[in-house]
Amino acid sequence: MNPVYNLELARRGAENLKRLRAQKPLIHNITNYVVMNFTANVLLACGASPVMAHAVEEVEEMVSLAGALVLNIGTLSRPWIEGMMKAGKRAHERHIPVILDPVGAGATRMRTDSARRLIEAFPIQVIRGNASEILSLSGGEPGAGPKGVDAVHQVDEVQEAAIQLARDLQTTLAITGAVDLVTDGKRVCRVMNGHAMMGRITGSGCAATAIVGAFLAVDADPLAAAATGLSYFGLAGEKAAKRASGPGSFQAALLDALDEIKEEEFEAGAKIQI
Amino acid sequence: MNPVYNLELARRGAENLKRLRAQKPLIHNITNYVVMNFTANVLLACGASPVMAHAVEEVEEMVSLAGALVLNIGTLSRPWIEGMMKAGKRAHERHIPVILDPVGAGATRMRTDSARRLIEAFPIQVIRGNASEILSLSGGEPGAGPKGVDAVHQVDEVQEAAIQLARDLQTTLAITGAVDLVTDGKRVCRVMNGHAMMGRITGSGCAATAIVGAFLAVDADPLAAAATGLSYFGLAGEKAAKRASGPGSFQAALLDALDEIKEEEFEAGAKIQI
Amino acid sequence: MNPVYNLELARRGAENLKRLRAQKPLIHNITNYVVMNFTANVLLACGASPVMAHAVEEVEEMVSLAGALVLNIGTLSRPWIEGMMKAGKRAHERHIPVILDPVGAGATRMRTDSARRLIEAFPIQVIRGNASEILSLSGGEPGAGPKGVDAVHQVDEVQEAAIQLARDLQTTLAITGAVDLVTDGKRVCRVMNGHAMMGRITGSGCAATAIVGAFLAVDADPLAAAATGLSYFGLAGEKAAKRASGPGSFQAALLDALDEIKEEEFEAGAKIQI
Repeated sequence: MNPVYNLELARRGAENLKRLRAQKPLIHNITNYVVMNFTANVLLACGASPVMAHAVEEVEEMVSLAGALVLNIGTLSRPWIEGMMKAGKRAHERHIPVILDPVGAGATRMRTDSARRLIEAFPIQVIRGNASEILSLSGGEPGAGPKGVDAVHQVDEVQEAAIQLARDLQTTLAITGAVDLVTDGKRVCRVMNGHAMMGRITGSGCAATAIVGAFLAVDADPLAAAATGLSYFGLAGEKAAKRASGPGSFQAALLDALDEIKEEEFEAGAKIQI
Repeated sequence: MNPVYNLELARRGAENLKRLRAQKPLIHNITNYVVMNFTANVLLACGASPVMAHAVEEVEEMVSLAGALVLNIGTLSRPWIEGMMKAGKRAHERHIPVILDPVGAGATRMRTDSARRLIEAFPIQVIRGNASEILSLSGGEPGAGPKGVDAVHQVDEVQEAAIQLARDLQTTLAITGAVDLVTDGKRVCRVMNGHAMMGRITGSGCAATAIVGAFLAVDADPLAAAATGLSYFGLAGEKAAKRASGPGSFQAALLDALDEIKEEEFEAGAKIQI
Repeated sequence: MNPVYNLELARRGAENLKRLRAQKPLIHNITNYVVMNFTANVLLACGASPVMAHAVEEVEEMVSLAGALVLNIGTLSRPWIEGMMKAGKRAHERHIPVILDPVGAGATRMRTDSARRLIEAFPIQVIRGNASEILSLSGGEPGAGPKGVDAVHQVDEVQEAAIQLARDLQTTLAITGAVDLVTDGKRVCRVMNGHAMMGRITGSGCAATAIVGAFLAVDADPLAAAATGLSYFGLAGEKAAKRASGPGSFQAALLDALDEIKEEEFEAGAKIQI
């Protein structure tokens, strides 16, 4: 392994993966319609037990059974925001970690406002998004505005703003792109795993969020959970890209790779800097 | 073929598959968001014509065109329950068979109650679930409660309770697991087809339900429809597992196998006991 | 290339594909639950940037960022119709092209009425459906009524009615089947690309609609956009069918093919008559 990468986090990642596969924690997702199937399959491939439930009548009961709660605002409507509110508050009461994916924040007022309302309503351990989405949460004006789910900023440009925003929001931010940036406002990690093919299928960002959610269920440090979860997902992407002949076969190969990666393989392949 | 398996049901299964492919019955699904795409593809691969429609304004018209109605409470909310109610009542009036998948019954009150309300509102020919879900319909306390969609009981442990429950509910119960159990309260079938990989992808239980729905459209005996439908699905799983290198490639291989299995191949490979 | 096919439209198709990949226009979809994931992946494979958003609170903002709006009534309910209405009206104000997929029109009153209401509420550049769905928009009685998404009419039988209907509705109609028919009431195109496997997976019609939507974002002539978009999709289907061993592997191979087809390959393989 290249010595520039952090060996402790690589070992911790392998340990997290081992725990995940042994404990198979229930991960409660309130997510968008587009990625529900893929997200559930990603979580199963990791070793977790996914459940999707959004109705206000049942989210409090469901989240109480879960190891982590994943909130994703990708195809939002009013009743779903209410479901997220109830689930998030109950998760907080039960000390269940929460991760938010503010899909499209900055693109429409509804998305930006909903993300901010969720952040104000209960503590969120990790927020995972691309740079545009994350920076739109600061209250400042977004750059060019997001186009679909494309990130328009580079890691170096956003690092200082991200550190400040993590402090302001008292959370851990995971900004994914060619290089992933994870910061809790004090520490900063960079994750170099990944492959450009991941941006050629829908839901790869949402899958990253769900995986970090699963890692939060087995690692109490949000920064470590996010960095190791993203590294594992990126490594699966690298492996899948070698076998795929296009985005369709890549989607299947990515699930195969998540399932197949052994703990020692992950430890050897993790590219995390801190 | 191993003589321990029932030759008559194997033949009947092959006959059902032949009819399904010839008649291409419309199967009306009111199901969960996670599995809609996969369920539709599974039904197409079997030879059926899937349609998804849930709005109260149209379900009565839609179900009137259908050969069977599939109800699945996987991502439930109030308006969808209303749609299921209207569709189920109209199906009963038109003598169209109904199958219910009580996904997550026992996990939350909303799911358990909704499943019971549907069962009370109109006759249901088959209820397909894992042991936890099915036993939660008895009104008794569930064991450990379901974790995701995992079954926590074995067939032998639940057989007596299942027979009694089928009598009480006047329906056919199809409890899937390593071995599937089908009972109408008088007769009991066991289906030995299947593969562990089927539990590694989301929606395999829901797909089993939809396939039994399709078999109900061509076989007037719910026990035979359920046993042969589950056997066919299990055989496809066995076939797909030989070709797959992980859950992603398995999902595609399963659709290929459903499409590919010939009637005589099914008759030779069916592992149904009665 | 066979001289019977139009070289100008083949060249225009290649040019459209080149522009699509260079400009990566945002395509705003308000579509059905079944096909959202596949549609997003299809659009990404073409080079476009898909977004799904349906809430009345945000559709006007979202569509304003888009190069085209895709409306699909596959799993309709009241709130979604309202979202489509708002999005379509705003699209018209901003001169953003709109395409409608009247899934299941003719099957239930809600679908037929909703499609007609949308057509009356704002201009729609292209309507893409099978023959039953399209002809149900004429106000006349549909033939046998649609069974799922199967077309029951042949191109020759419907051509005169389609030309008249395109004039009446002042739109371009794209009727897909073994041969696709595109007409704006004055000109008529036939697209001979495609493969029977495309009818063996769910959402291939919806994918065709989304691709034509993407082509509308780069080609101001709806007839040319529809004919070239359908030709490109059909060519991808031909290519994918050579590699697939069934509907599951075909679905992945289709995405791979859409991604892989080069502009010159498309120009050489396009089978469009005018």
